[in-house]
Amino acid sequence: MTDLSSGHVRAAPLPPRITFLTDFGTADGYVAAMKAVIAANVPTCLIDDASHDIRPGDIAAGAWALGAYWRLYPAGTVHLAVVDPGVGSSRRALAVEADGRFLVGPDNGLFTHVLDTAREWRIRSIDNPAWMRAAVASTFHGRDIFAPSAVQLACGSPLDAAGPIVSDPVSLPALRPVRHDDRVLGVIVHTDHYGNIITNIPAAWIGDGACVRASGHDIQLRRTYADVAPGELLALIGSRGLLEISVRNGSAARLLSATTGQPVVVRGGRR
Amino acid sequence: MTDLSSGHVRAAPLPPRITFLTDFGTADGYVAAMKAVIAANVPTCLIDDASHDIRPGDIAAGAWALGAYWRLYPAGTVHLAVVDPGVGSSRRALAVEADGRFLVGPDNGLFTHVLDTAREWRIRSIDNPAWMRAAVASTFHGRDIFAPSAVQLACGSPLDAAGPIVSDPVSLPALRPVRHDDRVLGVIVHTDHYGNIITNIPAAWIGDGACVRASGHDIQLRRTYADVAPGELLALIGSRGLLEISVRNGSAARLLSATTGQPVVVRGGRR
Amino acid sequence: MTDLSSGHVRAAPLPPRITFLTDFGTADGYVAAMKAVIAANVPTCLIDDASHDIRPGDIAAGAWALGAYWRLYPAGTVHLAVVDPGVGSSRRALAVEADGRFLVGPDNGLFTHVLDTAREWRIRSIDNPAWMRAAVASTFHGRDIFAPSAVQLACGSPLDAAGPIVSDPVSLPALRPVRHDDRVLGVIVHTDHYGNIITNIPAAWIGDGACVRASGHDIQLRRTYADVAPGELLALIGSRGLLEISVRNGSAARLLSATTGQPVVVRGGRR
Repeated sequence: MTDLSSGHVRAAPLPPRITFLTDFGTADGYVAAMKAVIAANVPTCLIDDASHDIRPGDIAAGAWALGAYWRLYPAGTVHLAVVDPGVGSSRRALAVEADGRFLVGPDNGLFTHVLDTAREWRIRSIDNPAWMRAAVASTFHGRDIFAPSAVQLACGSPLDAAGPIVSDPVSLPALRPVRHDDRVLGVIVHTDHYGNIITNIPAAWIGDGACVRASGHDIQLRRTYADVAPGELLALIGSRGLLEISVRNGSAARLLSATTGQPVVVRGGRR
Repeated sequence: MTDLSSGHVRAAPLPPRITFLTDFGTADGYVAAMKAVIAANVPTCLIDDASHDIRPGDIAAGAWALGAYWRLYPAGTVHLAVVDPGVGSSRRALAVEADGRFLVGPDNGLFTHVLDTAREWRIRSIDNPAWMRAAVASTFHGRDIFAPSAVQLACGSPLDAAGPIVSDPVSLPALRPVRHDDRVLGVIVHTDHYGNIITNIPAAWIGDGACVRASGHDIQLRRTYADVAPGELLALIGSRGLLEISVRNGSAARLLSATTGQPVVVRGGRR
Repeated sequence: MTDLSSGHVRAAPLPPRITFLTDFGTADGYVAAMKAVIAANVPTCLIDDASHDIRPGDIAAGAWALGAYWRLYPAGTVHLAVVDPGVGSSRRALAVEADGRFLVGPDNGLFTHVLDTAREWRIRSIDNPAWMRAAVASTFHGRDIFAPSAVQLACGSPLDAAGPIVSDPVSLPALRPVRHDDRVLGVIVHTDHYGNIITNIPAAWIGDGACVRASGHDIQLRRTYADVAPGELLALIGSRGLLEISVRNGSAARLLSATTGQPVVVRGGRR
């Protein structure tokens, strides 16, 4: 896309922007309470809901979603992300700078995809009381620690003010594909809203005539959905550069009874 | 409503505003990836979520929802709408100007209600590479074509720069009511979140003493829900100026097992 | 949290901010139609979705959610809230000022928690035609009365211009806990997205060694989830300062078959 920065209408200075991902659902008012903390401290702040529909406690699903957008946002964006089954335990609260974007959330693996794909990152553990509300409820760090910390970063406070350096953030188990002879062995890492199955096998590992085997089905590699008839299985390279398995106008996850962690084998992988 | 334009607080120049409708759900990060493309190119842009809960692939439901709000937004608004089961096929990507509002989305009938109700419209097929991301994934035109095109329009790029003129946009089958003697024959076009049944019969076609027949029930025309007892059926003129069938504090769609396309007959229609 | 008002980036004057809560769901376009009315009249307005997933017609659940955030937002915020099973009946439409925040919605108890916790409030019944759209549909006061009234308040119109004084707003039945000897008798007032059970018993009424009894279970008071093993019941003081019952990494509501209104007894309550 051409650079549009010179052409567009802009009120100087730019308003801060915070994105917001949780597993809270919205019906209890928890999400709005966090937005309130932001609005009360940064009245000009733009708040972009990413999702509040992550399955409760599903850190891997939250990490996956975050991986879809964190780096597409411009430098300076603050990504607030709370999927936090361990709230109130001794797990750390993190403030992260990765490739110029900031992230705030619990230290439980939620930032795995961010840290795996960032060129450079720095992390601090949040323990500065100025980055918290005066009283911290043991069950709602979102409102009392994470939202105030996002406010600090949106206002330009230096990351280093958050607290001590963290060099060992919690990471989800690495699910890396492996090669044996002409075969690539991978796993399912996500199934999406449409029933598309996403694997951990990168496009670069797949040869043109590759054949994919999953749940007892042999599946041909195609370019896009329209290359097969409605209802048919196909494999293709998806929007994150990974091998996906789909059914045109249907659900591959349902057809293959697919769940995260199941094996996928590619024959004819590039060597 | 009185004109409030002189009274309200306004930072000049006005920020662009993009509305956003999809069938993506939010949990996979696809929606946030598209917001990121907008934010990266138009940092001041206000993004209003319309819905991400359109039933997957239900173009008619997306078209219906869009019809509820597209023209209530002020001129200059960009409506980004992606319900796109044919992504990756040869269906065109459209940029539309209708009564001063802009719309971006696939050419599959999603704009049927917009084009049916607009006083004037112009359409272009998007094929200008400057209106796309550098690499276009065959499965995610939302991120790689539609969001960048919405950015172009929000930044003031002329519609004509998008690509060639389109004079034959895809339209959903017209579901127009017909009259026979004193009867109006219509169909159900939508059932909403509350189980209200919306028909394609306009208020102007209905006489005061009209009686409505649907799914074997005879239903009296009333002014509003409170005109009947809780649990009772009624017919009324709804918020889009069309005949609706409801149950006070209940679901007419469930009671009548109603689905889109079923017939509704009005006796005593105005002639 | 330290005062950030001097440090953050701010375009003068501040943009108005409206929060938005309904039981509409988003898929029918009703929510977007109301946002359109706001955007058309206050182009700079920031709109924060609170929730559109309140259970249809569940006024108590809407009131509960509103209670979580209304006062955390800064003075001047307008809270637009529509859970309105009585739309079209003679129930009043209210404009409220409570501790400097504004609220707009139906007079059906939706503001119960706000009015119970505000230090001071003033209420007007909306009957000024300038606070409505020119034509008011009997089934969609959200679009035709409440959104335009929120616009008026966001633009600085005085509350008193809305209509006549209201001194007797509808209130949900008060569910106040009572004490007998060393026991506190309360009820469940809400169950949240995670299955946490929230009661109406305030922290100040509970002694340190208190034991909680609900649905035939004796439950120990703890500080936070991590104080028990996964799958175990605990009682604790939640983020709204009320007694809650939870299962670590599980659903207390499911385990105890809990619903709003069920009794909860605390022994060892503070006297």
